Amino acid sequence: MDDGRDVVSEALDVALAYYEAWTSKDFERAMTFIADDIVCDAPAGRIEGSVAYRAFMGPFVQILERSELIAAFGDDETAVVMYDTKTIPVPSAPGAECLTVENGKITRSRFVFDRAPFAASRAA
Amino acid sequence: MDDGRDVVSEALDVALAYYEAWTSKDFERAMTFIADDIVCDAPAGRIEGSVAYRAFMGPFVQILERSELIAAFGDDETAVVMYDTKTIPVPSAPGAECLTVENGKITRSRFVFDRAPFAASRAA
Repeated sequence: MDDGRDVVSEALDVALAYYEAWTSKDFERAMTFIADDIVCDAPAGRIEGSVAYRAFMGPFVQILERSELIAAFGDDETAVVMYDTKTIPVPSAPGAECLTVENGKITRSRFVFDRAPFAASRAA
Repeated sequence: MDDGRDVVSEALDVALAYYEAWTSKDFERAMTFIADDIVCDAPAGRIEGSVAYRAFMGPFVQILERSELIAAFGDDETAVVMYDTKTIPVPSAPGAECLTVENGKITRSRFVFDRAPFAASRAA
């Protein structure tokens, strides 16, 4: 961003803008930070491309009630965010993402969360 | 550490020393970084105190084969590490920890990983 301030971390700026967008349920704005050729390693496996990422993340945003940021750090290329989400089926579902940012877009994501409570909710 | 170098992050130093210890299976050294009154929120619930933490983490170190660090960031009080472990039952089990450090010891931990593949392994 060319606003004259010291840029502590471009990757962190993008990661937080992305986080703010999806946690405020502005999913279309969130997707503007996702590179067309994103590669995301999520608990259920690898997701390749923004179309597949949209199909992965969109339904989660639909069941999201709120999120609390736990930590966010980054450098020029990489950022890590951890947060705790409240969703309709699961009252506390923490997640962590390690994001690689290139030219203002997220190109690589390592996504960690516990699938167990979501599976338990579906089984109930 | 009073070795004359610039201390980028005391919390990160402790988090990485802890990580290096448990991933090299030196679990007793790892436990030296855990405060007696640690509070850890893990996928299965809250773990309070170093005795309970030892009972939680010890068995995991027993099944650990290796770990690859994905990212590590921190400031004076807080650090976040993300890594991918290979364990005997689960070939890829990524985890993320947000650690609060006080006086060189980890007093607070938010621990995120996916329990699903471990449950599937037990059921198989």
